[in-house]
Amino acid sequence: MSKSFEKYIPFVPLKMEHRSWPDKQITKAPIWCSVDLRDGNQALVDPMNLQEKLEYFHTLLDIGIKEIEIGFPSASETEFEICRELIEGGHIPDDVTIQVLVQARPHLIQRTFEAIRGAKHVILHFYNSTSTLQRKVVFHMDMPGITKIATDAAKLIYELSQSVIAEGMDLRYEYSPESFMGTEMDYAVEICQAVLEELHATPEKRVILNLPTTVENCMPNYFADELEYFISKLPSRDCAIISLHPHNDRGCGVATAEMGLLAGAERIEATLFGNGERTGNVDIVTLALNMHTQGVDPELDFSHINRIKEMYERCTKMKVGERQPYAGELVFTAFSGSHQDAINKGTQYMRDSGSGKWEIPYLPIDPADVGREYEPIIRINSQSGKGGAAFVMQHSFGFDLPKAMHPEFGHIVQVETDRVGTELKPERIYELFRENYIDAVKPYELVRHSFAEFTDEEGHSHVTFAGTLRHADTTFQVQGSGNGPIDAFFNAIHGQKMDHFTFVDYKEHAIKQGSDSQAVAYIHLRDENGADWFGVGMSHNINLAPLKGILSAINRAALHRD
Amino acid sequence: MSKSFEKYIPFVPLKMEHRSWPDKQITKAPIWCSVDLRDGNQALVDPMNLQEKLEYFHTLLDIGIKEIEIGFPSASETEFEICRELIEGGHIPDDVTIQVLVQARPHLIQRTFEAIRGAKHVILHFYNSTSTLQRKVVFHMDMPGITKIATDAAKLIYELSQSVIAEGMDLRYEYSPESFMGTEMDYAVEICQAVLEELHATPEKRVILNLPTTVENCMPNYFADELEYFISKLPSRDCAIISLHPHNDRGCGVATAEMGLLAGAERIEATLFGNGERTGNVDIVTLALNMHTQGVDPELDFSHINRIKEMYERCTKMKVGERQPYAGELVFTAFSGSHQDAINKGTQYMRDSGSGKWEIPYLPIDPADVGREYEPIIRINSQSGKGGAAFVMQHSFGFDLPKAMHPEFGHIVQVETDRVGTELKPERIYELFRENYIDAVKPYELVRHSFAEFTDEEGHSHVTFAGTLRHADTTFQVQGSGNGPIDAFFNAIHGQKMDHFTFVDYKEHAIKQGSDSQAVAYIHLRDENGADWFGVGMSHNINLAPLKGILSAINRAALHRD
Repeated sequence: MSKSFEKYIPFVPLKMEHRSWPDKQITKAPIWCSVDLRDGNQALVDPMNLQEKLEYFHTLLDIGIKEIEIGFPSASETEFEICRELIEGGHIPDDVTIQVLVQARPHLIQRTFEAIRGAKHVILHFYNSTSTLQRKVVFHMDMPGITKIATDAAKLIYELSQSVIAEGMDLRYEYSPESFMGTEMDYAVEICQAVLEELHATPEKRVILNLPTTVENCMPNYFADELEYFISKLPSRDCAIISLHPHNDRGCGVATAEMGLLAGAERIEATLFGNGERTGNVDIVTLALNMHTQGVDPELDFSHINRIKEMYERCTKMKVGERQPYAGELVFTAFSGSHQDAINKGTQYMRDSGSGKWEIPYLPIDPADVGREYEPIIRINSQSGKGGAAFVMQHSFGFDLPKAMHPEFGHIVQVETDRVGTELKPERIYELFRENYIDAVKPYELVRHSFAEFTDEEGHSHVTFAGTLRHADTTFQVQGSGNGPIDAFFNAIHGQKMDHFTFVDYKEHAIKQGSDSQAVAYIHLRDENGADWFGVGMSHNINLAPLKGILSAINRAALHRD
Repeated sequence: MSKSFEKYIPFVPLKMEHRSWPDKQITKAPIWCSVDLRDGNQALVDPMNLQEKLEYFHTLLDIGIKEIEIGFPSASETEFEICRELIEGGHIPDDVTIQVLVQARPHLIQRTFEAIRGAKHVILHFYNSTSTLQRKVVFHMDMPGITKIATDAAKLIYELSQSVIAEGMDLRYEYSPESFMGTEMDYAVEICQAVLEELHATPEKRVILNLPTTVENCMPNYFADELEYFISKLPSRDCAIISLHPHNDRGCGVATAEMGLLAGAERIEATLFGNGERTGNVDIVTLALNMHTQGVDPELDFSHINRIKEMYERCTKMKVGERQPYAGELVFTAFSGSHQDAINKGTQYMRDSGSGKWEIPYLPIDPADVGREYEPIIRINSQSGKGGAAFVMQHSFGFDLPKAMHPEFGHIVQVETDRVGTELKPERIYELFRENYIDAVKPYELVRHSFAEFTDEEGHSHVTFAGTLRHADTTFQVQGSGNGPIDAFFNAIHGQKMDHFTFVDYKEHAIKQGSDSQAVAYIHLRDENGADWFGVGMSHNINLAPLKGILSAINRAALHRD
């Protein structure tokens, strides 16, 4: 195998004498900033056009995001025009701040001030790259040179701000030491402090210090260490809002953001579904709903996730993966039989106990909280157990099969999945149920029937059944009495060729299909060899359904013996 | 906004007096176990057929995975048959161990022993669910009851093992306290210890204790805390191999696995590209390549990731997301101009310095290490800077444009991207280059030419150029001398209508297109107003290329003035 791993320079974690972040918990939402329209958009094969950007912007507003980076207006005409349209077209509500990105370069900064003219609330976000690697291979500059780029820009921005602030703009500043995670922490503190001072930051007018993992280059716990160290060393800590901008190159963007919050971050830049350069930015949906499932208010509205996903896929032409947390097509699907069984029982437990708490195994969030549904949760394939098919019958069609019947019907479904080699859709499962039970009307058929019922002086019911049965081409009369309709019918057929069955159990419930309501009866018989036979009967007449169920069970046994 | 977050019961982290995992680093690969054919397969809409499972199995072997969970043979006929085919078909190399999963239930365990007969190396993996929630809502059992399920199964397994071991099978055991992360840690220790004892585990015959995050329910650092605690409390620690099986419900599977390794885990169960129930299992590709980029040998071979991805997508009918770390279509793509520029400079630095280390910003891994290519790294859209177009010209077509020319060509490309509103493919960028420079052969055209050259007694070259030029319908003769061909030509055209240009710079290199090698010359002229004009000429004749380049620059200026 290749030794190509040897060419990499490992990340060197800080030596920490003490760390407090692992003892912390997330108890409230951070300030959210969407960078969808900038970092997300710039990483699209086809960047969004004006129309798409506007629709996306309004969706972000609907979600409740109050700080939105709308672009890099000095980078191209298109970007500039979108910024102007947002401002001049009146798209920005009064409680929302737009953010614009710009490199720490004078002509681009000037152009950016032209772009934001007339906006009410603006965050002017400037950056330069500070890492050891970039200083060496890109800028060929020492630390003071890099600091000067940042402070010169800060000075110019502060100067140019004065007139727009005088005109009434609520203008705030954000500085990113880009490639922060490749920067010596003491130097990161130094350059950020210099910028804070140049921008006259105070506890009342805090400047956002945004600390990106531009390229995710280490484990999230090392990031949290660095962040805790950075914050502890920053002289003007109280003049800064600590913001994160995690990417996902190592697949750890979510953990980096969360541990960053433990380590003192107050704000997170993120995108819907993690769109962004390369492996993307951290996913704001996952972050918010992770909080939600811990009982923490994310202060964002993802109660209609499918609608957001549809907009996202249409505008970006990207696809939300099938296994993307909370939003993916398959994330509320449990294939495994034991999972299905446990979900079933959890649902039952919540119903029975009236528990106000979410206590369902294998579903870390209630699908309804994100506007998704239970119905498609369980798909039945050859890996599913007996509980799955019963669950589908209950949740998709309202048939509440008795527990004892689950293995038999589960087996019928499993044989079919083994045969076809694919998943079975709920419709096909219903079909198997119908074919095997409800349609088991041969060889024994009830042609007509009557009941007579009276209650004696002691309060006992006496029911007499009389009816005509058909077996193949033969019809015959039966009659019997008992303490109820089922008993009477069972006694009536006793003495016929059907008399080797004993009655084990019975369950009946109403079932609504459309505007039509019927009774469905599940019958459990046992034959002379101790084998169990289940039958199902349906009828508008609640007396008739169980009779049909009994015949269904008898017919299934008869067919099996033929 | 909805208060639906209030119904969730937050995870309660352990109170740790002391923790040592955050001070650790990953220095070697864990034991890898693939659960693709079990956990991955069972979560597919259409589970793989035998043919697909076999192809997938062989790919896992090629990657170098030595422990492979092949299924749940007691769960269905299909599963049983696949197990038999792997064993009887001779698919399993001698250094590879197959693993089979089974619930802690007697009849399933017995069936599993039938399934593995004849295999050389087997891990028999049994599980039962241990969490507070599952005990409450699913099993309605107390801790001793749950423990008994596990120890009864362990006892049966140990008994049934004796004959197959006597027949020569290398049979090892794995136990999973399923829903480990919802289990009280002291109880998890207790049940695992009981199982170790029942299986007669010793330091020589260690039993795998697999601790799943069946549903990811907390931040990875809390998981690491629990794991460190668990390991520290386990009496027979030296008789166990600690294994993890992370899922990804909170999007933190990778971080959970990595921090778990810091906390003492020695083995990881994972799948290619994170296939598995719901949000999937942890992705083995990301875990392995994360180690790779830290200079740690992952002991797995992902040097042909596209081939693996193709097999995966075909067999599972799942799609690897565009932003999936290391494997996604877009992860080696940098759209941002400053990123492109930095990658360019990093590449240059590595070439110039001969650095054996990977020192390229924005590319956390050398795409070549996973069998991917540089060429498509940079796509050009309206967000790209000047460096991007030049990079594409160099890397896709071999044109090494002089630095001074980058802004001009970058602008041409940007105008076009703004116009079309989509990404430009490299081919279109080349077309723009050709149209704007190489094809700028009007109005001035060189019809024919000759050079005469001699060197005087002092060693100075004297070159005389004589040629015929055409301007629209007029042809005219020019002649001039100089110390080289370019000088001679430039002097020859002096006095024509082209004499307001001064010569600024020149660069020429050979370029190979197919088997054909030509010279390409980049010419930088400046006009009387100080404006820069670049021209490009190509020819098999290295003397002719610069002349064509000069005329290209002049023609471009002339067209611009018209």
